[in-house]
Amino acid sequence: MTRIERVIAGMKKEGLGHLMVTDPISIRYLTDVYVQPFERLFAFLIKDSGECVFFLNNLYSVPKTNFKEVWFSDTDDQISLMASELDGCKKLGIDKEWTARFLLPLCEKCPDVKPVLASFIVDDCRAIKDADEIVKMKKASLINDTVINKAADFVKEGMTEKEVAAFIDATYLKEGASGNSFTTIVSFGANAADPHHEPDDTVLHAGECVLIDMGCVYENYCSDMTRTFYCKSADPEQTKIHDLVRIANEKAEAMIKPGVRLCDIDATARDYLSAAGYSKEFNHRLGHFIGQKEHEFGDVSAANENVVKPGMIFSIEPGVYIEGKHGVRVEDLVLVTEDGCEVLNHADKHWRIVG
Amino acid sequence: MTRIERVIAGMKKEGLGHLMVTDPISIRYLTDVYVQPFERLFAFLIKDSGECVFFLNNLYSVPKTNFKEVWFSDTDDQISLMASELDGCKKLGIDKEWTARFLLPLCEKCPDVKPVLASFIVDDCRAIKDADEIVKMKKASLINDTVINKAADFVKEGMTEKEVAAFIDATYLKEGASGNSFTTIVSFGANAADPHHEPDDTVLHAGECVLIDMGCVYENYCSDMTRTFYCKSADPEQTKIHDLVRIANEKAEAMIKPGVRLCDIDATARDYLSAAGYSKEFNHRLGHFIGQKEHEFGDVSAANENVVKPGMIFSIEPGVYIEGKHGVRVEDLVLVTEDGCEVLNHADKHWRIVG
Repeated sequence: MTRIERVIAGMKKEGLGHLMVTDPISIRYLTDVYVQPFERLFAFLIKDSGECVFFLNNLYSVPKTNFKEVWFSDTDDQISLMASELDGCKKLGIDKEWTARFLLPLCEKCPDVKPVLASFIVDDCRAIKDADEIVKMKKASLINDTVINKAADFVKEGMTEKEVAAFIDATYLKEGASGNSFTTIVSFGANAADPHHEPDDTVLHAGECVLIDMGCVYENYCSDMTRTFYCKSADPEQTKIHDLVRIANEKAEAMIKPGVRLCDIDATARDYLSAAGYSKEFNHRLGHFIGQKEHEFGDVSAANENVVKPGMIFSIEPGVYIEGKHGVRVEDLVLVTEDGCEVLNHADKHWRIVG
Repeated sequence: MTRIERVIAGMKKEGLGHLMVTDPISIRYLTDVYVQPFERLFAFLIKDSGECVFFLNNLYSVPKTNFKEVWFSDTDDQISLMASELDGCKKLGIDKEWTARFLLPLCEKCPDVKPVLASFIVDDCRAIKDADEIVKMKKASLINDTVINKAADFVKEGMTEKEVAAFIDATYLKEGASGNSFTTIVSFGANAADPHHEPDDTVLHAGECVLIDMGCVYENYCSDMTRTFYCKSADPEQTKIHDLVRIANEKAEAMIKPGVRLCDIDATARDYLSAAGYSKEFNHRLGHFIGQKEHEFGDVSAANENVVKPGMIFSIEPGVYIEGKHGVRVEDLVLVTEDGCEVLNHADKHWRIVG
């Protein structure tokens, strides 16, 4: 089955006749056509009959496709052109990424069409990686392993977060990645207590933690890993918490196999850290799916009762954040196999001294 | 009047009691609070009573604000929390940037609330820059002038597009910018016929055009400029088209003053190029608004009949693209003044030889 055929099978299961795909990455996944539309309209309509329609601005550079193409200019009435392709549609599947600027005018134009969130049908296909995707994701994670080890050797007392991030970004290109999958996070000391801290001019001092959360892109596929080091020395609270977080990561990874619920994987890591006294200090979900984007649909959280299936790739990233002092996160990507999982990262995850 | 008071005045003019602002840049514009929420919920509700409500995930690092704050975790029923703040709301203003993942569940939860696109109320405020914003935008464009001149000196026959783009990006940082406002476009020869070409490993040969479209960020404000050069030599067709495009740019800029319609500015450049035989070769709008984002709401196009007002800043960027051969674009930013406009870019825009 082609990817589009898998989506149509999913639509039929949901009783959905029309699905408007607008996430550019989903469109690339289904058609190999990539456009970054910025604020312009770009959409791919799938009908359960098998007919597909591309909606394209004549500014886009797109090779001739095998689908029906509706071309328009910036000044055309684009919503009317789109509406005229929805004859007989009662319920229209909408992409979660579609913005109100298009969605609300289309709803206004087609009052008899009920919009329903349905991009999960494509996302469920994207979540199960095929052999070709797995090869690329493994390579992206191998590059990540190489670069984090080089970063650990590079980081020195007195450097700024920005310097370390710039080294990582440049090394990715040397190692064959096409770029970053997200802005590299390098957090020293108390900055590490903010899970989303962005690198700034903070200078590294002895005794501080060095939290690095980084990922690269290889042939459109992403990696994502976090390691936490210590500059020159680590105090007992730091190493105790690091050991706890690493063990939470390992316990979660050890239980992953087809059939296990994602919420139960989250609970395993969370309960372990809670029992050690770190409950509110682990203030985010355990993980997220990943593929052509660094955050894809699906997560490893208390709210997700879906079960794990072979071919899924997601992150396992417990963390403990001590406001004003330091933070620890240990993150790998895992690939679900027929009878367990394969951890795609190989960089040592025990605490270690750098600088 | 504060910015929020200006927005409430706009809401009252539109008969709108509630406005849900979700564009992170608009929220920063109104509150100085910045969060990059990725796929998570982040919103700022403005009521015409003056009450404002922040919707915040406990993962966000946000200082205490002066507004009512509704905090939630990844696993809370966030849409219900939001709905409970909409008591008595019949018509809810929606941000054009809001995605279906939140909009459709909120509509489902609140069937009596009619969603209407209303972020133009905030966007109309953002379009008129105040004195502080103008200072920052002028500085961002001055940096752009400096860097394009350095790039013109740097580019040499045999270099790749990526090398030139990397030089520009690095030079921005040296000149005091915090980064790029968009991915630098460097297009050699036939690549320049695609207005949105991204730099690749294409090598520069003598006789080819070098189209550079670039912008940087200075204290959160963006610049954006395009110049087109020629390597070693230029043939008569290239220089003829370059002169036409530059004159189209100058004619458009010369007519800008308060009261002139944006569509008429577009028509001036377009008619001039059409009369010279280049109609379909100028396949995009003449310009776009810019500020904290490189593309803000509002454009200079046939579809926009609004008039120009003092304090507006937008681009003027005519282009002619000859498929398979070359392309020319000449772009400046302009600031509308009380009686005309000030061109924020000073780099020479005549065709010139480089390399």
